[in-house]
Amino acid sequence: MNALPDAAELARLDAADPLRAARDRFALPDGIIYLDGNSLGPPPRRALERLEEAAREEWGQGLIKSWNDAGWMELPLATGRKLAPLIGVDGDEVVCLDTVTILIFKLASALSRKKPEAAIAVERGDFPTDGYVLEGLAALTGCAFKYVEPGTSPAALDPEIGVLVRSAVHYKTAEIADIARWEREARETGLDIIWDLSHAAGLVDLKLKQDGARFAVGCGYKFLNGGPGAPAFVYCRSDEIAGIDHPVTGWLGHDTPFDFVDGYRPAEGIRRFITSSPSILAITSLNAALDAYDAMALSEVEAKARALGDIFLQAGAQLGLDTISPGIGARRGGHVCLRHEHGYAIAQALIARGIIGDFRAPDLMRFGFNPLYLSYREVGEAARQMIEVVETREYERPEFNVRKAVT
Amino acid sequence: MNALPDAAELARLDAADPLRAARDRFALPDGIIYLDGNSLGPPPRRALERLEEAAREEWGQGLIKSWNDAGWMELPLATGRKLAPLIGVDGDEVVCLDTVTILIFKLASALSRKKPEAAIAVERGDFPTDGYVLEGLAALTGCAFKYVEPGTSPAALDPEIGVLVRSAVHYKTAEIADIARWEREARETGLDIIWDLSHAAGLVDLKLKQDGARFAVGCGYKFLNGGPGAPAFVYCRSDEIAGIDHPVTGWLGHDTPFDFVDGYRPAEGIRRFITSSPSILAITSLNAALDAYDAMALSEVEAKARALGDIFLQAGAQLGLDTISPGIGARRGGHVCLRHEHGYAIAQALIARGIIGDFRAPDLMRFGFNPLYLSYREVGEAARQMIEVVETREYERPEFNVRKAVT
Repeated sequence: MNALPDAAELARLDAADPLRAARDRFALPDGIIYLDGNSLGPPPRRALERLEEAAREEWGQGLIKSWNDAGWMELPLATGRKLAPLIGVDGDEVVCLDTVTILIFKLASALSRKKPEAAIAVERGDFPTDGYVLEGLAALTGCAFKYVEPGTSPAALDPEIGVLVRSAVHYKTAEIADIARWEREARETGLDIIWDLSHAAGLVDLKLKQDGARFAVGCGYKFLNGGPGAPAFVYCRSDEIAGIDHPVTGWLGHDTPFDFVDGYRPAEGIRRFITSSPSILAITSLNAALDAYDAMALSEVEAKARALGDIFLQAGAQLGLDTISPGIGARRGGHVCLRHEHGYAIAQALIARGIIGDFRAPDLMRFGFNPLYLSYREVGEAARQMIEVVETREYERPEFNVRKAVT
Repeated sequence: MNALPDAAELARLDAADPLRAARDRFALPDGIIYLDGNSLGPPPRRALERLEEAAREEWGQGLIKSWNDAGWMELPLATGRKLAPLIGVDGDEVVCLDTVTILIFKLASALSRKKPEAAIAVERGDFPTDGYVLEGLAALTGCAFKYVEPGTSPAALDPEIGVLVRSAVHYKTAEIADIARWEREARETGLDIIWDLSHAAGLVDLKLKQDGARFAVGCGYKFLNGGPGAPAFVYCRSDEIAGIDHPVTGWLGHDTPFDFVDGYRPAEGIRRFITSSPSILAITSLNAALDAYDAMALSEVEAKARALGDIFLQAGAQLGLDTISPGIGARRGGHVCLRHEHGYAIAQALIARGIIGDFRAPDLMRFGFNPLYLSYREVGEAARQMIEVVETREYERPEFNVRKAVT
């Protein structure tokens, strides 16, 4: 078992951190160590500024003219172009809009209709919404829907399965999927994989095209810091776009929306994923939030997240807690989960101390580490306090054992 | 032909206007007369304030805790409750989220699956997205999709049609549908009607329940002033909700979303329309925008909109222009359309004078009148200037004849 790094070591790590300049790009409250950026990223200062500018100037002064003059019409595509390098794809292969679930619905229905005899599937225990929406689609179209065992690679899958939705980083374990291997096997079996990047985008150094991925969706409000309920995004490899006929066909995805003609004809390119006017305020915030990545290498982001997670795993080991996450030094996503029967109360006790993580029933404490704004010193301090809360049984205080709706 | 009201008459009308206090609730640019609130409403001051508060305080300071502490979890429902009286329904029958097109998809797929032999239909020439999305749904499920002739009442419809989407106010003509008659006939024939309230909500004194309407969707960014691309809303009469199994099933519409279980089970009540986290920033803006209606009667709003529209129809008549809208004194929605072969250039010339209307190809000038912030004086002045632009042929200047993508 490695020891927790001491203050001098933490200071040395911070001084050598190639990402340290990014911290000032965020507006974080004083006295808080925020370990829940994997649920909701904090506001980048630029997002707050642009949001107010978009509201007061573009909306308030420009009014309807801003659809042209402020670039609102192109904003979903422009934001996609900005996001594309973070996931390793080309700029015209991503568009920002809707929500992850709605985009899975669009992609899965478009892929499933091309092989109506095939089943659509998700891993058991993957983020529930991915299964719920396939279940909803299957009930509508009559295709089969299946849960498959976690980690079953395409070569080992029931050959009846034609479309698989799978998280690139698991929302509980933080395990990173082997996208290249999965896609290699999928090419052999004719499987279409929709990667859910919700816990990966902006944290893992994704190389989707290089790894052969053709379809993906992801979340704008976690590591990308786009704001609560920020628009999601969809990636479709350029050679696959023309084959996508999704059913939620709205006027802004039409080839000539301002002709106002009866009869749908999808736009060329990734624009065809658009259904209707996106929230300009919400997407402006996401667009500006992406500036936090300027001159920051994703490889460094992923490596530092692993180092920060290691500190918490070391603390967990010192307390004798199990983890369900890949262990110290192993490649993983931006969070770690530690198991404790009083995990809920420990999380609450830490929140009372200004250390915000979260909790997933029945007994998982989940701590997320976004290296753009977290220092080694802060994460070391949070780990030290978690040890203190557990060792002193501070979590037994009644106020930490009252359940709220969301944690 | 009535004469245009003179300055004294306009001043008298403004002095007697029961809505005059609402103007100060809006942040409108100086020197602009805004006649396009039917495309994009301007910002209510309260929306700008709340948006900034939600971003800086709730997101920036409260971070993840705001899902509980700032009421984010309930915001789509709370906003629905606030909107309900504006359309004449109960507070627990409306929820704000998604977009109009996505909500039509949800409702139409849920209704259509209950009668798989029936066709789904829309009026030819209704707002195109309503047809596009039914076409997309039909292609996915194999049910039949039809365009029907405008104004065909349920008793006269092809009996094969089981679901009809229809605008309550037509986006071009501003004709108001006879909801009560349509629903009376629909009860006889077993037709389900989804009312598209995009151009009606916040302007027409809708009494949906009293008129027997069971399903509706509407737009947040037109007369409701929620912001560019604001969330939409869906109404479902309480006794119909339990029968709605829409296919875009996501985790926040689950009965127990925070149990994170495999297998979908829809929430009780209107919450089941929710798929995923809505944009909190966008919906906060819409929620606050609704405060502009405080103590303002919808019956007064509709009546004043008609009076303002009458002024433009009088100006049109003076110029010998055709209209496709219900005539002077007739009940209509919040806009009027005047026909002129140089309509595009006239609209541009008016924009150059600070009078913002819009244009719908090939030759329709469309002017929208939101009585909450427009005075009789302003609309009279705009009408006078339109007459001047047409009579002097100012619109022939080359700079007014350059086409932009959106008008």
